[in-house]
Amino acid sequence: MKKAMFETGRSSVKLPMPAYISGCGCIAGKKESEGPLAEAIDCLSSDNTFGTDNWDAAESKLQKEAVRITLEKSGVDKREIRYLFAGDLLGQSIASSFGLLDFEIPHFGLYGACSTCGESLSLGSMTVGTGLASKVMCVTSSHFASAEKEFRFPLEYGAQRPISSTWTVTGSGAFLLTADNGPKTLAKISEITTGRIIDMGVKDSLNMGCAMAPAAADTIRQHMEDFGRKPGDYDAIITGDLGKVGSQALVDLLKEKDIDVTDKHLDCGMIIYDLENQDVGSGGSGCGCAAVTLASHILPRIKSGEWNRVLFLPTGALLSKTSFNEGQAVPGIAHAVVLEHVE
Amino acid sequence: MKKAMFETGRSSVKLPMPAYISGCGCIAGKKESEGPLAEAIDCLSSDNTFGTDNWDAAESKLQKEAVRITLEKSGVDKREIRYLFAGDLLGQSIASSFGLLDFEIPHFGLYGACSTCGESLSLGSMTVGTGLASKVMCVTSSHFASAEKEFRFPLEYGAQRPISSTWTVTGSGAFLLTADNGPKTLAKISEITTGRIIDMGVKDSLNMGCAMAPAAADTIRQHMEDFGRKPGDYDAIITGDLGKVGSQALVDLLKEKDIDVTDKHLDCGMIIYDLENQDVGSGGSGCGCAAVTLASHILPRIKSGEWNRVLFLPTGALLSKTSFNEGQAVPGIAHAVVLEHVE
Repeated sequence: MKKAMFETGRSSVKLPMPAYISGCGCIAGKKESEGPLAEAIDCLSSDNTFGTDNWDAAESKLQKEAVRITLEKSGVDKREIRYLFAGDLLGQSIASSFGLLDFEIPHFGLYGACSTCGESLSLGSMTVGTGLASKVMCVTSSHFASAEKEFRFPLEYGAQRPISSTWTVTGSGAFLLTADNGPKTLAKISEITTGRIIDMGVKDSLNMGCAMAPAAADTIRQHMEDFGRKPGDYDAIITGDLGKVGSQALVDLLKEKDIDVTDKHLDCGMIIYDLENQDVGSGGSGCGCAAVTLASHILPRIKSGEWNRVLFLPTGALLSKTSFNEGQAVPGIAHAVVLEHVE
Repeated sequence: MKKAMFETGRSSVKLPMPAYISGCGCIAGKKESEGPLAEAIDCLSSDNTFGTDNWDAAESKLQKEAVRITLEKSGVDKREIRYLFAGDLLGQSIASSFGLLDFEIPHFGLYGACSTCGESLSLGSMTVGTGLASKVMCVTSSHFASAEKEFRFPLEYGAQRPISSTWTVTGSGAFLLTADNGPKTLAKISEITTGRIIDMGVKDSLNMGCAMAPAAADTIRQHMEDFGRKPGDYDAIITGDLGKVGSQALVDLLKEKDIDVTDKHLDCGMIIYDLENQDVGSGGSGCGCAAVTLASHILPRIKSGEWNRVLFLPTGALLSKTSFNEGQAVPGIAHAVVLEHVE
């Protein structure tokens, strides 16, 4: 093996072996159960506490259930899982820590805000695709009520929301990556483009789509450059949670770089909810948005062959309530993986 | 390449190629400048604001400086760095996000509490040791004042501290990992044991040493089992920040498993401060504790050959002020890497 032989361009790698997404599971809450993906989500609850005492515990329950469902659907025992790659939006990632404790699996905690689904799939694929692990699990979550409390105001305040604001998805998605390709394989990952932190000075924490769009544009541009490709080489280019407002910004930013994604771009935040009828502002957001949409909507289309190659890039806004209150801008980051159909 | 050929035991890997620690840099504050490692720390400030307006910005400055110093000492340009693996203790990891923004390096944000130094070296080594990257940077930080505000009380409250409590190190350490072995090589990493989340029900957030000791014991036991070794195979077994109280708990827990580390165990929290004279309770803690001690104390001893093989395992307490206030216990995690002398 040669040193650094798998580096591709500035920010990408092509793995020596593919990582197969061999299973997935997702769970979501009330709003999602009223949206367009309801029938494809494994488990739905009209009670957003999921039987727990508080919103943080509810989010932990989401991660636990997403992993449990994935193991069950895949027929894999938790002891076969080499690593967990997990993260969420809460301070000190407590949804992951407390939710995944009982599985007793070696654990890599991640923080990439709402890009964490992409980050976990990137790092997970890297371990599987280089012979470091045979099976790993990637899981992320978000919860509307815990996120409002963490980043904005407790629900009880009844704060008003501008139309640029997005609605944090209450949900979690887990993904089993394996070195082996079997009958349950949904897709494979062998190309990864890792995002940089991009700060264009957007300070409005209620317009996170525009705060994250420059990071998504940067990752897409870098990806195309690193692999010598164009948008036409993909059946879809799917961002995590830019929403309606951020998606328009992304298309405009890429046009300035002579990259036209108009016909290829989709956003999980606009897939998971019915924007006309669900009063969710600009669309869905949160780690759970990309994860639940990937599990319930994107992977089935790749498995069936409707889509052959998809660029999937969850997007994250790297703010905290402290950074916001101290007057900082909201930098963004976007982590891309290429999802490919397996015959 | 065979699938998963580098898996070793239940929780470990042996990398196909070593990752060389080719450079490091560290910076610390006032308390550390009065401690035993002062002369070996690259940059010290008696002003814990480091010229910034608030504690969070000060911690961002620490990370930025640690990376800058490391690049400068190594003679490496930031554009040569493939990935940043970074994390800190603050909610949503804002010290890393804002501190590392200007480097424009593809970024993997991590959260492993005070174990993050071990987590970043683990994942960084995995990318370098498998041909995915030629050069990566791992960086973590903590700041006494930002941590007190984040986890306990603002300094202005003047809250009292029990003797089991530890003192969060104000400091940051950065490590350059490369695929190439050169004259500046400090050590190499080729064996990694990844920690699980362990909860023994300790609820006292002012006795984090005891909360983390079971996780450290679990990782050490698993490491010895995975590689078929015993403590005598190491010149030192060094935990991150158990402090005096937690270190005793670790020795006792391992004795129950017939593993005697009495003569081999050291703790960064007891190296970085003079426990007799610095009024730091049980010792130092925080992501910066393990990172600064590694850069200023451990790596020089490995480079010189005084130590040939060291098991280095930063320890993390996975609590938040929310989880604490909601009555949850404090689970721990410990991520181990083997640091070896290079001739």
